[in-house]
Amino acid sequence: MAKLWGGRFQKSAESWVDEFGASIGFDQQLVMEDIEGSIAHVTMLGAQGILPTEDVEKILSGLRELNTKAEAGELEFTVANEDIHLNLEKMLIDLIGPVGGKLHTGRSRNDQVATDMHLFLKKRVAEVIDLIENFQATILEKAEQNVETIAPGYTHLQRAQPISFAHHLMAYFWMLERDKQRFSESVKRIDILPLGAGAMAGTTFPIDRLKSAELLGFSQVYQNSMDAVSDRDFIVEFLSNSSLMMAHLSRFAEEIILWSTDEFKFIELDDAFSTGSSIMPQKKNPDMAELIRGKSGRVYGNLMGLLTVLKGTPLTYNKDMQEDKEGMFDTVQTVLGSLKIFEGMVRTMTINTARLEQAVQSDFSNATELADYLATKGMPFREAHEVTGKLVFTCIQKGIYLLDLPLEEMKKESELIEADIYDVLAPEAAVRRRNSLGGTGFEQVKIQLQTAKALLS
Amino acid sequence: MAKLWGGRFQKSAESWVDEFGASIGFDQQLVMEDIEGSIAHVTMLGAQGILPTEDVEKILSGLRELNTKAEAGELEFTVANEDIHLNLEKMLIDLIGPVGGKLHTGRSRNDQVATDMHLFLKKRVAEVIDLIENFQATILEKAEQNVETIAPGYTHLQRAQPISFAHHLMAYFWMLERDKQRFSESVKRIDILPLGAGAMAGTTFPIDRLKSAELLGFSQVYQNSMDAVSDRDFIVEFLSNSSLMMAHLSRFAEEIILWSTDEFKFIELDDAFSTGSSIMPQKKNPDMAELIRGKSGRVYGNLMGLLTVLKGTPLTYNKDMQEDKEGMFDTVQTVLGSLKIFEGMVRTMTINTARLEQAVQSDFSNATELADYLATKGMPFREAHEVTGKLVFTCIQKGIYLLDLPLEEMKKESELIEADIYDVLAPEAAVRRRNSLGGTGFEQVKIQLQTAKALLS
Amino acid sequence: MAKLWGGRFQKSAESWVDEFGASIGFDQQLVMEDIEGSIAHVTMLGAQGILPTEDVEKILSGLRELNTKAEAGELEFTVANEDIHLNLEKMLIDLIGPVGGKLHTGRSRNDQVATDMHLFLKKRVAEVIDLIENFQATILEKAEQNVETIAPGYTHLQRAQPISFAHHLMAYFWMLERDKQRFSESVKRIDILPLGAGAMAGTTFPIDRLKSAELLGFSQVYQNSMDAVSDRDFIVEFLSNSSLMMAHLSRFAEEIILWSTDEFKFIELDDAFSTGSSIMPQKKNPDMAELIRGKSGRVYGNLMGLLTVLKGTPLTYNKDMQEDKEGMFDTVQTVLGSLKIFEGMVRTMTINTARLEQAVQSDFSNATELADYLATKGMPFREAHEVTGKLVFTCIQKGIYLLDLPLEEMKKESELIEADIYDVLAPEAAVRRRNSLGGTGFEQVKIQLQTAKALLS
Amino acid sequence: MAKLWGGRFQKSAESWVDEFGASIGFDQQLVMEDIEGSIAHVTMLGAQGILPTEDVEKILSGLRELNTKAEAGELEFTVANEDIHLNLEKMLIDLIGPVGGKLHTGRSRNDQVATDMHLFLKKRVAEVIDLIENFQATILEKAEQNVETIAPGYTHLQRAQPISFAHHLMAYFWMLERDKQRFSESVKRIDILPLGAGAMAGTTFPIDRLKSAELLGFSQVYQNSMDAVSDRDFIVEFLSNSSLMMAHLSRFAEEIILWSTDEFKFIELDDAFSTGSSIMPQKKNPDMAELIRGKSGRVYGNLMGLLTVLKGTPLTYNKDMQEDKEGMFDTVQTVLGSLKIFEGMVRTMTINTARLEQAVQSDFSNATELADYLATKGMPFREAHEVTGKLVFTCIQKGIYLLDLPLEEMKKESELIEADIYDVLAPEAAVRRRNSLGGTGFEQVKIQLQTAKALLS
Repeated sequence: MAKLWGGRFQKSAESWVDEFGASIGFDQQLVMEDIEGSIAHVTMLGAQGILPTEDVEKILSGLRELNTKAEAGELEFTVANEDIHLNLEKMLIDLIGPVGGKLHTGRSRNDQVATDMHLFLKKRVAEVIDLIENFQATILEKAEQNVETIAPGYTHLQRAQPISFAHHLMAYFWMLERDKQRFSESVKRIDILPLGAGAMAGTTFPIDRLKSAELLGFSQVYQNSMDAVSDRDFIVEFLSNSSLMMAHLSRFAEEIILWSTDEFKFIELDDAFSTGSSIMPQKKNPDMAELIRGKSGRVYGNLMGLLTVLKGTPLTYNKDMQEDKEGMFDTVQTVLGSLKIFEGMVRTMTINTARLEQAVQSDFSNATELADYLATKGMPFREAHEVTGKLVFTCIQKGIYLLDLPLEEMKKESELIEADIYDVLAPEAAVRRRNSLGGTGFEQVKIQLQTAKALLS
Repeated sequence: MAKLWGGRFQKSAESWVDEFGASIGFDQQLVMEDIEGSIAHVTMLGAQGILPTEDVEKILSGLRELNTKAEAGELEFTVANEDIHLNLEKMLIDLIGPVGGKLHTGRSRNDQVATDMHLFLKKRVAEVIDLIENFQATILEKAEQNVETIAPGYTHLQRAQPISFAHHLMAYFWMLERDKQRFSESVKRIDILPLGAGAMAGTTFPIDRLKSAELLGFSQVYQNSMDAVSDRDFIVEFLSNSSLMMAHLSRFAEEIILWSTDEFKFIELDDAFSTGSSIMPQKKNPDMAELIRGKSGRVYGNLMGLLTVLKGTPLTYNKDMQEDKEGMFDTVQTVLGSLKIFEGMVRTMTINTARLEQAVQSDFSNATELADYLATKGMPFREAHEVTGKLVFTCIQKGIYLLDLPLEEMKKESELIEADIYDVLAPEAAVRRRNSLGGTGFEQVKIQLQTAKALLS
Repeated sequence: MAKLWGGRFQKSAESWVDEFGASIGFDQQLVMEDIEGSIAHVTMLGAQGILPTEDVEKILSGLRELNTKAEAGELEFTVANEDIHLNLEKMLIDLIGPVGGKLHTGRSRNDQVATDMHLFLKKRVAEVIDLIENFQATILEKAEQNVETIAPGYTHLQRAQPISFAHHLMAYFWMLERDKQRFSESVKRIDILPLGAGAMAGTTFPIDRLKSAELLGFSQVYQNSMDAVSDRDFIVEFLSNSSLMMAHLSRFAEEIILWSTDEFKFIELDDAFSTGSSIMPQKKNPDMAELIRGKSGRVYGNLMGLLTVLKGTPLTYNKDMQEDKEGMFDTVQTVLGSLKIFEGMVRTMTINTARLEQAVQSDFSNATELADYLATKGMPFREAHEVTGKLVFTCIQKGIYLLDLPLEEMKKESELIEADIYDVLAPEAAVRRRNSLGGTGFEQVKIQLQTAKALLS
Repeated sequence: MAKLWGGRFQKSAESWVDEFGASIGFDQQLVMEDIEGSIAHVTMLGAQGILPTEDVEKILSGLRELNTKAEAGELEFTVANEDIHLNLEKMLIDLIGPVGGKLHTGRSRNDQVATDMHLFLKKRVAEVIDLIENFQATILEKAEQNVETIAPGYTHLQRAQPISFAHHLMAYFWMLERDKQRFSESVKRIDILPLGAGAMAGTTFPIDRLKSAELLGFSQVYQNSMDAVSDRDFIVEFLSNSSLMMAHLSRFAEEIILWSTDEFKFIELDDAFSTGSSIMPQKKNPDMAELIRGKSGRVYGNLMGLLTVLKGTPLTYNKDMQEDKEGMFDTVQTVLGSLKIFEGMVRTMTINTARLEQAVQSDFSNATELADYLATKGMPFREAHEVTGKLVFTCIQKGIYLLDLPLEEMKKESELIEADIYDVLAPEAAVRRRNSLGGTGFEQVKIQLQTAKALLS
């Protein structure tokens, strides 16, 4: 089949070569954006008198027909036409005759594909932001139900200090808040129109780029046509933001997995978000959490992939850039899916409150209370730490916990310890007294929840 | 040597184990920030009445003495004290006695190290932004000198269309502008104080985190203490922004290298930014550009490294996070150095104007002019493209260029071609007529330069 | 639809959750391997008397029918059945009744999927090795035709010393030779059978793993069932080897792109391996080379992705590991396609011998000859280098080359220079005299070609 | 200071530019290898009569003096001399006069640095292999002590089936065995000498590369001088092999961390491999395991870094390649340190046998026994799975385990269940009966240990 760019060529590629170079296999995902961009372009060409109204009308009606077919999934794409742009142009010409060839006036595939990508990503980032908010709302709700649920807090995965379980959940709220911020800020770099940059130098036709921008809902146009056709920053930025968000989700997923073990048993996932084993009948696996944890790899890989593509490529458009698409599509799908699944998983999980509270009764996570108690009584913190460490070791050897240790035993290490120490050592008191701003004290957690709520509405 | 946390331990590590875990080898770069943070912390402790004025005074004088020594490079750190925090605390105690141990009241290394990192990165990002602006100013200046320098514009590294060389240079201005935007926006996520989060749950002491923030110049404090000690997003974001900027520099470097070849000869680098060969006496190598191109790898690697560290780690602080530092320090140094070098290299390079203009005389980069000419006369663009392609092929066979082709030869392919085509085909005219917004037309380039100038001032 | 593992579940997942977790969308690529593995498994079960002959016959006939349908592309997979294993098992049961359920005796999906992957990759790596050899043969052939084609040799992309163009091409032969070695060595770690490891602990049935291995053509079986089901090393190793090979191809691609520029013009690609522009009629772009250069990113990304997936996951199988497949499939396709295309591109390209030889006449790449000449006459090499550097600078100022410099001018810098220097400076002589082992001297290149030829046959 | 390559230059770089380009800050780690290579080179030059004996003697004595000083740490390097090669050459000339300049005859920094790297890495890989073997021996020893220690085996971090703890530990033995294989195989690609390749084209001097190889202990020489100076495959391969090994260590580390939690309590780490908290006196953190888990990021990053450096760089040497060193040095140090620490950590850890065996008494990891029991009695496995799943659910509702369920309750779901089921369900029996090759049955584990032992000796 004749290429649309074949004038100077004497020989055409074999089909397997065509296939290697063709992007239609994946860039057909841009079909709606490509038609949308063409409609705006030809409308502008008409308004500027570059094409006669009659031609514009014909082209518009053809494009609208293609649009209807696209929505109905009736378009059939072919590798012989390389990419979504030439496929659609060929279809248009088949539909309305050679006048269809005028659509490409004052435009190149270089600015066209960049336009499609901007249109596509702008919509998707909006969806990502919505799903983040939705997930935040669910976390907030779970937190509100668990302000007074006392749980072990960890550093190094060792019990550290007792906390409000709401406080733990809310840590993810704030990570997601930063993710949302970053995605939102990135919009201003997606919301710029490259159309009109032509192949890379602009065009000789008296086009009106601001008109095109207005028709397509863009706030700005690129100031430099060479930059416009070779800029893929907005995709890298999307992949970076997605990678960091997947890092967050992988951390949360790790905790969901840990909490679901026989050993922790802090939560139980809903059956709808678990799967079984083909061989072990007792299994109830936190598959969704594992899968999301694993999918961080895919997104990191997509980021690394595109950064590699860009490395060391001269201006302006190079065919390497065709490699920007699959990683972006894959990341969009991964990020949207992961957010949706995670929200459902958290919403439907059961928190094993009894187990959590039992946990903090039988550990040494209240040891800091003792050290702080001594420090408050004037002992330098370093000594207080040393004294407490020795008392913990005594307990371990006896197989008991601090609350079980008689006062006289304590006094052996420091005379500053009085009978009121037992109140201080109660986990509930330990949580309550961590009342510094942003701390786990119940009062502070409630303030935090209010602040968070205000952010969501 | 006794550990500051050794109370419950019966046995200490061997020195080679200590060495593996110690961070003092690299986190000593945080010495100034660590002292700064301690000064603010103890000041706040005094203001809140948590420590008596007398103790505060002693500690402050000790810290100031350490600060003076640190500036003079007189502090000697030891692996036995693990990290910068314990090294300084031990020095303080050696200096002022056990009261030094009170400095750690209401604070943990977990919130302390995070505070150091925030302080450190906030300063460095400001430097990065300054150097970007400086480099942009140089690009702008070079561009202003070359608005009317006509050069070949490329896609696929094939001559595409003639352009203003200023336009080409300015493409990098806009990439750097986006880099600057991203770094600037990231500041709001660096400018948040974690101090007061304690080990992860907050503290029982009546601290005033807003006071600490004020003393240290932070606009905000973390709302959630667990998030505060485990958040490394601000570093990932710095590495992401740096990676993308290095991608830009690697592209510019690639062009500098190409332009310096015998084959292109578009520019000549200053001797001060070139090096020779130990064996080939004629060599003048664009070493700096190559090195910066290569250094993209290091920064990408640092980004991937930290993303990997974070993947799947549960809350809150884990020792894995100690791995956040070296990649950050290395990236700061790489980014600052690369910007400084690149600016000097561009500022001092000579643009070979004659060679550039000769280049566009002897290629087919004016072929689009012919196609546009035909399209303007009413031929559908696709046909115009085909006709032009055939004429280019004719020229190649004859070993001539389009401007050399007699009118009658042209007319064989299309009667629409008239004698005015030769004016249209002149490279200077080709550039001038690409007068669409953001295009390479001289007029547009001048507008672009004004817009850019306004951004810098 | 009822799950095959649903006994202990009270509630099933909603379809969108199922879809997120399902792998059938991509693991259907393992359909032939899955059936092949099942045929071997049930054959072994029969031979061991674990299943009665009658059941084995039924199952085998069912599997063969599925095999026939699979080859004809007639199987229809469904997300409701999660993955290729359960899809096929359900189809088998539909075909032959509940006895189909016996196929899974003594087997788990964990060892089954690992078996499929080993089978799949073993075949593909053999294909990769074949294509590498094929490409090497083409390089060798091109090199044999160009032993005496003199070309500029580069370091830092600056002309360094004249070389035989065959020598340059052969550098890629050796890179590919190492790639082939690595892929070949990796086979021993792919050629190990996991089947029989069960879910992870082995099985209570008296299976014969060596029999299964024999039936499937594996040389070894895993020695540890926990390792067997959680090992993905062989895939990481494939991705590592592929990444390095893609690095090689990206380097070669970069050179193809450079050599195809107007500025270098060292080669011309065949029309069949080039493409045009939708807007610039003169363009002939080295798209295939650019695309392969870009595809290095995709493969690096897949490697980074899987390494991330594995990081920090506990034994044994975790759902994260489902993420091993798409990157592997994508890399197989990329690597096979890139090798095939590159071979065709090199085979059909025209080397512009005249341009190459003209190039070395007009540069300073013979400067080392002068330095070596002086060193041979007893001047310490460092002085010889200095003297030559000065003469080069003199030439640059005069706009001439070394061969144009009169003897008396040369003698001003060193009396050691005699009239025979002009023979020494001829590029052809410069190449010929670099006759050290592995050097570019024609004689050495011929020896190199013989060595290479012997390796291929 | 005058550059050794400055003849054609009119201007020298400013010191900050020099500093950016200089590699002496890190390549001084190659000092011993650089001297070793020079000794061999000059010895060969003498043997070939290229340099007179007298000069050779002088140079050798100078090099030996430098060697002595280097061993004593007495050499002082300077950025002004760029790199280790020029630093040493300058020192040599200072020591023995201008004759020192003859050392560089027939050699370039390009083949010299490559030689240094090959020498360096050959030694380090041998150390890595030794440390792997050492670690394997420790794992083997621990396993031999725990053949009959029954522990829960996991998939999805859910209890799956009871196993021998030795079996679990041995999974890591086999991963390390593959790592060792890969490092060993890589040696053949490190053990190739580039020296004699000159700048990239070979040399005109009648050198004897086989002699140099013999003197330096290399088995082969590069067949192609252009490949010789631009090959960094051996480093990439080292980084790939290291990345995969770090993935293994990160998995083992994750398990060590899990097993050390209050919740699992399967092991207790020795005090010497744990650290405390500056604030929480009870803490005993598995810092070393966390750090090694985190260090996977660094090594992955180094791999990605070098792959990026190589991407798209033309032949032959480019300055970008200087970026090959720091990542290699860092990885060598990380890998050696991690292996050494991990060995000590595993050697000294206490396995909490009682807790492990108690764990398997109170879970459903024996459910597969019941399903297999039914399958053996002729029920299709799928039905057996369903029946068992229902019985597990019944138990969960009653808060009991399978062994507690009365026979009549079991018979309600299947009449095939007889009184012998209780023997079948005992964890010890479950392990014993998994006697398939490579399975966890005690007998099989013993065979596995013998096989492993044979591999080590």
